[in-house]
Amino acid sequence: MSKVIFDCAISLDGFFAGENRSPENPMGGVSEKLHQWMFKQKAFWKHIKAEGGDEDSADGKLIERVFARTGAYIMGKRMYEEGEVHWAEDLFEADVYVLTHEQRAPWIQNGTTTFYFINDGIMSALKKAKQSAQDKDIRIQGGANTIQQFLNAGLINECFIHIAPVFLGSGIRLFESIDKDKYDIIISEVIPSNLTTHIRYQLTQKK
Amino acid sequence: MSKVIFDCAISLDGFFAGENRSPENPMGGVSEKLHQWMFKQKAFWKHIKAEGGDEDSADGKLIERVFARTGAYIMGKRMYEEGEVHWAEDLFEADVYVLTHEQRAPWIQNGTTTFYFINDGIMSALKKAKQSAQDKDIRIQGGANTIQQFLNAGLINECFIHIAPVFLGSGIRLFESIDKDKYDIIISEVIPSNLTTHIRYQLTQKK
Repeated sequence: MSKVIFDCAISLDGFFAGENRSPENPMGGVSEKLHQWMFKQKAFWKHIKAEGGDEDSADGKLIERVFARTGAYIMGKRMYEEGEVHWAEDLFEADVYVLTHEQRAPWIQNGTTTFYFINDGIMSALKKAKQSAQDKDIRIQGGANTIQQFLNAGLINECFIHIAPVFLGSGIRLFESIDKDKYDIIISEVIPSNLTTHIRYQLTQKK
Repeated sequence: MSKVIFDCAISLDGFFAGENRSPENPMGGVSEKLHQWMFKQKAFWKHIKAEGGDEDSADGKLIERVFARTGAYIMGKRMYEEGEVHWAEDLFEADVYVLTHEQRAPWIQNGTTTFYFINDGIMSALKKAKQSAQDKDIRIQGGANTIQQFLNAGLINECFIHIAPVFLGSGIRLFESIDKDKYDIIISEVIPSNLTTHIRYQLTQKK
């Protein structure tokens, strides 16, 4: 059965993004600090359809794995607007559901990526994403606020956190105002690495 | 050479303590959620001079290790006031420096624990703690605000974080308002476990 997952990097002090995010300053300029572990990996650059990276190690396998398991994406409007000016065409190779108040026809890209613009909330997006994903997983791509909405609705089955050994001091926290009573959580996988610590959690909604 | 360390548990959403802390409600009542991994260990109960625990596994060794390496403690007044009504006599088996505005003579306990009340700031406490610790380490025991003061002064050499798979939703964060430019940080040890994830970091003040 499809899982609803998220998979993202945070700083040691819990930040998912920096201050003053905009299309000109995606993630508030902190991507390099949080994603250093990815930037070294050939798998990352291959995924974004560019040249780069000098390693092909265990960290790279994780990048491939989450990409391969994901059958549909859901993201917030701000992440979409920050990203789409930078993303290669057909980056996601799947249906992407963007939560927005803007009414807009689907954007069908060359390849297999289509952006759908959803005006009626997370449950509607999730229902459509499940149809797209079939037996693959649905990844809540971000931003933090979108992930928090799914968390607090009890809809997340699994998350994979990559904790970078860096302080950001300010910005947008991944886990802000989380409903503390929603889930039983177990640690399912811990993968040490030099530039980050990968921890996978399974979340089960409390009865 | 002595290191200045801290060693503490946080929730997945980064909280070190809950709301409404008081001597009647130490840590805001969240200790059980954050410290479940410790409470199972015989080493923990032995350390607090009580009976309890049913395991003697790798997690317990970590409790013994930090206790053995610590030659002096520094803590804030609130942690002291919350704790001292509950702590067994001679819990620390070392000199403990309490940051406070209260002028008070040292409290020499039976055994080898003495509480000293320091009125002139963290550098003064650290200087005295270094003399007490000799070649052992100085542990900044807490609370979060005291740890943040030492962090932001560039004085921490190592920290050991135990991330519990639980959301607290609110409370006091360990890493609040951290100076992002103070340290280069490397991950020195990651120890997976069932009830927490242990991650040790080495911090070097940036030149």
